[in-house]
Amino acid sequence: MHIFSNVAELRAALARVRQQGRSIAFVPTMGNLHAGHISLMQQARQHADCVVASIFVNRLQFGPNEDFDKYPRTFEADCTQLRDAGVEFLFAPTEQDLYPEPQTYMVEPPEIQHMLEGEVRPGHFRGVATVVMKLFQIVQPDVALFGKKDYQQLMVLRNMAQQFMLPIKIIGGETVRADDGLALSSRNSYLNATERAEAPRLQQVLQGIRQAVLNGQRNYEQLCQEAADTLNTHGWQTDYISIRRQQDLVPAGPDDRHLVIVAASRLGIPRLLDNLEI
Amino acid sequence: MHIFSNVAELRAALARVRQQGRSIAFVPTMGNLHAGHISLMQQARQHADCVVASIFVNRLQFGPNEDFDKYPRTFEADCTQLRDAGVEFLFAPTEQDLYPEPQTYMVEPPEIQHMLEGEVRPGHFRGVATVVMKLFQIVQPDVALFGKKDYQQLMVLRNMAQQFMLPIKIIGGETVRADDGLALSSRNSYLNATERAEAPRLQQVLQGIRQAVLNGQRNYEQLCQEAADTLNTHGWQTDYISIRRQQDLVPAGPDDRHLVIVAASRLGIPRLLDNLEI
Repeated sequence: MHIFSNVAELRAALARVRQQGRSIAFVPTMGNLHAGHISLMQQARQHADCVVASIFVNRLQFGPNEDFDKYPRTFEADCTQLRDAGVEFLFAPTEQDLYPEPQTYMVEPPEIQHMLEGEVRPGHFRGVATVVMKLFQIVQPDVALFGKKDYQQLMVLRNMAQQFMLPIKIIGGETVRADDGLALSSRNSYLNATERAEAPRLQQVLQGIRQAVLNGQRNYEQLCQEAADTLNTHGWQTDYISIRRQQDLVPAGPDDRHLVIVAASRLGIPRLLDNLEI
Repeated sequence: MHIFSNVAELRAALARVRQQGRSIAFVPTMGNLHAGHISLMQQARQHADCVVASIFVNRLQFGPNEDFDKYPRTFEADCTQLRDAGVEFLFAPTEQDLYPEPQTYMVEPPEIQHMLEGEVRPGHFRGVATVVMKLFQIVQPDVALFGKKDYQQLMVLRNMAQQFMLPIKIIGGETVRADDGLALSSRNSYLNATERAEAPRLQQVLQGIRQAVLNGQRNYEQLCQEAADTLNTHGWQTDYISIRRQQDLVPAGPDDRHLVIVAASRLGIPRLLDNLEI
């Protein structure tokens, strides 16, 4: 695996890949990798000849109350996993490499950036969209992969790519789960043993909502409220459970198809996210 | 000259150009072409093997008080000029081609977008930056050319390209002038004969400021005020004359180098723009 921090050097290496007629798949990450990320790398190999990953903890997407400095950095372990997964190039820029001057030109997503995850993380999706636009311009991949676990992020980036007519296919990778159904996340490490045993309930209540919708239930608000109540009586503090349209995460009406149930709920210290497509 | 309105067809044609190892220069316009535009096309040929022009009247950059529908459209005459100038591909999309859905993801420039031209044209530079980002993704040129006549636009696009690390070299084309010094502009056609004879004074007062600065004058505010007074006593209504830093159009201090004098003043119906680098 070739590791670059310098933009010009990475570009030169990728120009050679293109000259060889090889296609490029790109998987941006903030490091601290788990099996969910590695699954994306493996899927990337199905979509292109050459897989490029990036590790960059992007200050721009951290909210005022989020601790950029404490974000876990596990570079050596990440490199081992990426190498084993067949990643050919790793782009790991410093802040100076990627932001040689303060970023004052931004990609501004529409109103949805302030809802759901955006409500608790002001500026988050603007920061994500901006850094990903920038990484796309550097790597110029044919396809890029993002996990469905962060469904709102995937939606924002997919729509950004579509509206700016980026010549890049955006692919959503299925969420990787533990055997009991808990979605893998670096936040899971903050769960104690009791909480860890409780945690799969989040996915279970989403499965329950999905089954009810498939059975013809259309009172979405009531379904979600009942699911939140179930969680909350088991020690969770639920931020939201909501049935949305997949393409823009606008609240779904009874006639909408292609739905997704999105949820965020705190269990002990960590705030767990999950979702389920219908 | 090959003319395309469809994005996919243009992309396919340009992919063939790239496969031939030929470089691409791009000159976006809103049509209604004059010798200033054609000069950009000719310069473009110096910078790349293949010149792509676009004609698109971009609704997104028109302010609430500007008349999108009345913007002059002279497609046939434009095509003749572009063909004569050696343009190989013309991209002339319909609104449906370029905005198949409403544009809700925007490139948001920093505060400077609201000053100078931005003050009288709210949303203008956001609209320009967004459509140019989009055109860049479609054409994927090696170089792109914009006239220095619209200095603030050139500055915004140059900084956008730099901050998003677009793999595109931005080149500013020198302003083309009539023999008496008046900068060419489609707005000049609104001048009556008396006004047309008066119009070169705008460039003359900028030349005067430039000479004073080169002679060591550092009271920029007074210099500009005197120049505005001169214009206004000759029937002009001056919006601004200001000495700025070239790279970001922030007001220049006495120690700044690489300056530009920017000016906007109304003479009869049209509001004329001009500028002069120091």
